[in-house]
Amino acid sequence: MPEPKPYVLNSKEVQRATLEWLEKRGVTTKAIAELVHYLQSPYYPDLTLEECEHHVVAVLSKREVQNAVLTGIQLDMLAEEGKLLPPLQDMVRHDEALYGIDEVLALSIVNVYGSIGFTNFGYIDKQKPGILNKLNDKTDGEIHTFLDDIVGAIASSAASRMAHRKQEEKENGLPSD
Amino acid sequence: MPEPKPYVLNSKEVQRATLEWLEKRGVTTKAIAELVHYLQSPYYPDLTLEECEHHVVAVLSKREVQNAVLTGIQLDMLAEEGKLLPPLQDMVRHDEALYGIDEVLALSIVNVYGSIGFTNFGYIDKQKPGILNKLNDKTDGEIHTFLDDIVGAIASSAASRMAHRKQEEKENGLPSD
Amino acid sequence: MPEPKPYVLNSKEVQRATLEWLEKRGVTTKAIAELVHYLQSPYYPDLTLEECEHHVVAVLSKREVQNAVLTGIQLDMLAEEGKLLPPLQDMVRHDEALYGIDEVLALSIVNVYGSIGFTNFGYIDKQKPGILNKLNDKTDGEIHTFLDDIVGAIASSAASRMAHRKQEEKENGLPSD
Amino acid sequence: MPEPKPYVLNSKEVQRATLEWLEKRGVTTKAIAELVHYLQSPYYPDLTLEECEHHVVAVLSKREVQNAVLTGIQLDMLAEEGKLLPPLQDMVRHDEALYGIDEVLALSIVNVYGSIGFTNFGYIDKQKPGILNKLNDKTDGEIHTFLDDIVGAIASSAASRMAHRKQEEKENGLPSD
Repeated sequence: MPEPKPYVLNSKEVQRATLEWLEKRGVTTKAIAELVHYLQSPYYPDLTLEECEHHVVAVLSKREVQNAVLTGIQLDMLAEEGKLLPPLQDMVRHDEALYGIDEVLALSIVNVYGSIGFTNFGYIDKQKPGILNKLNDKTDGEIHTFLDDIVGAIASSAASRMAHRKQEEKENGLPSD
Repeated sequence: MPEPKPYVLNSKEVQRATLEWLEKRGVTTKAIAELVHYLQSPYYPDLTLEECEHHVVAVLSKREVQNAVLTGIQLDMLAEEGKLLPPLQDMVRHDEALYGIDEVLALSIVNVYGSIGFTNFGYIDKQKPGILNKLNDKTDGEIHTFLDDIVGAIASSAASRMAHRKQEEKENGLPSD
Repeated sequence: MPEPKPYVLNSKEVQRATLEWLEKRGVTTKAIAELVHYLQSPYYPDLTLEECEHHVVAVLSKREVQNAVLTGIQLDMLAEEGKLLPPLQDMVRHDEALYGIDEVLALSIVNVYGSIGFTNFGYIDKQKPGILNKLNDKTDGEIHTFLDDIVGAIASSAASRMAHRKQEEKENGLPSD
Repeated sequence: MPEPKPYVLNSKEVQRATLEWLEKRGVTTKAIAELVHYLQSPYYPDLTLEECEHHVVAVLSKREVQNAVLTGIQLDMLAEEGKLLPPLQDMVRHDEALYGIDEVLALSIVNVYGSIGFTNFGYIDKQKPGILNKLNDKTDGEIHTFLDDIVGAIASSAASRMAHRKQEEKENGLPSD
């Protein structure tokens, strides 16, 4: 009898699943790009949605980000199906004010692009423009306790990445990745 | 028909569930106290297990800690039952080296008692004394990917709390809570 | 010749210096309380400034908070006197967009009261009400690159502390510390 | 009269200063590479110092890392010259156990490469191999309260970066940057 094949992580599969799960939960990279545009267009008046989406895609290619997305969406879905144990089920379903693990996962995303993203994360999480408003609509039976913070964190990280790249361009006089 | 009663968090129930889930997963406050003793007895030769356990219980009374414990154990249990979606299921089951959400939850515990706990957390997580060694035994079919980091974080936090209290005692010449 | 007395931390002195340095840099506990009121009065219409200040004082009694306040103000003052080495001097003086150590210190404050404070921190840091607006006025030669983030973090932490205490009151039917 | 030239960050100068300050304080990229080798050679027996140094250099090219290095070394140097105000001067000079801002800066470095570096950071900070032992020698009048944590964080981050790259190689069958 052959030995079971040892486990080997398939990074492409993790990446693919991240994008698929986001889409299934109603979040496109374009919707996240709109949040980046909301945050950054005051500073860069010519900013296009395409450029914003480019940075969103780059953020979503990071393993730490993918891990947080998959874990957060999984917990949202289990809460929707009522499969978490009480009292965790209640806290996640009601997005309990003193339950902060959703913010903990979100911060692990922001951290990858450095502390300059904290401010944007908090701001957008309070203002809830675009897709964030939709994710927070509690009337449709869907639960996005984790996802709304995670989407805000991805948008803030993309804004941080853009700030770093714009600075490079300014210093080097060249467009950069 | 009466309106559904609005949700009100029951903090005592969250506290109770935290201790119950830990115990069900094989972790007593005494086992965590032994980790604290391992960390702190080099500095305080007369340190008793009772004093260590006192600080463990205090750490476990914090809501942020309870949230992390319940969320982490829930994910471990779902992985054990094979109920997470791939590829998350594989990553949690195999405690994948590049999956760091277990450390993210653990750090959210350490942070509550400040940055001085980071060193102890990393040290104990590598040395794996006592209960940490047991939780890491992968031969018994149990999955404690989250719990082993969480238990190390609780022990480190208890050590930090103790350091703060010992300093107060030294300055005030009085035993303090 | 007597041996030099060994160093013993004087916690009361650290606490006293924290309040003194804040005041010297133009920040009273009352001004921070006004930020807390700005954040929390939408949820608690009867909230008084006195109650807000009570939580600010409690936050400022934590050693981790005091350490961040003293370190941040020290760096601001050295930048004002031109005593930091280039290029750090330039980055702190100009509150460089890609210099995020001020946010790093601020987050170490927020973390003590848990992740639920992140949103308020980012929001207030962007809106800059009250004292935050004054600290950000770059026309008067004063440098508050660190202090404005730190004050926002203290206010957010006080708001988090209040949220925890209000929940306890609601469950127990009793006012609590 | 011409207007003063507006401030523009010079990123190359920040990078250059980071390496220069490290060297002046006795820390070469090779010494940090030895820490990475200490951490990772148990997992990769053929690991060379050159490969370790490659990852150290990559970590040091990140702005968030450079900011933490410059800020930490500046505080160490000011403490050495006795130029910090009491009680901050005393806390930094004595590497006070309850003063954790050095760990806060270190964590901001580790975070850039994700949570998987926390364990290595704590472990190496406790074991103090190689250059970390030298930095901790308190008998020579030098103060490295910040630098020793920062160097440990850079080494842990380099180890995390290596783990990500090794995984890519394994999956793709190709050496990768």
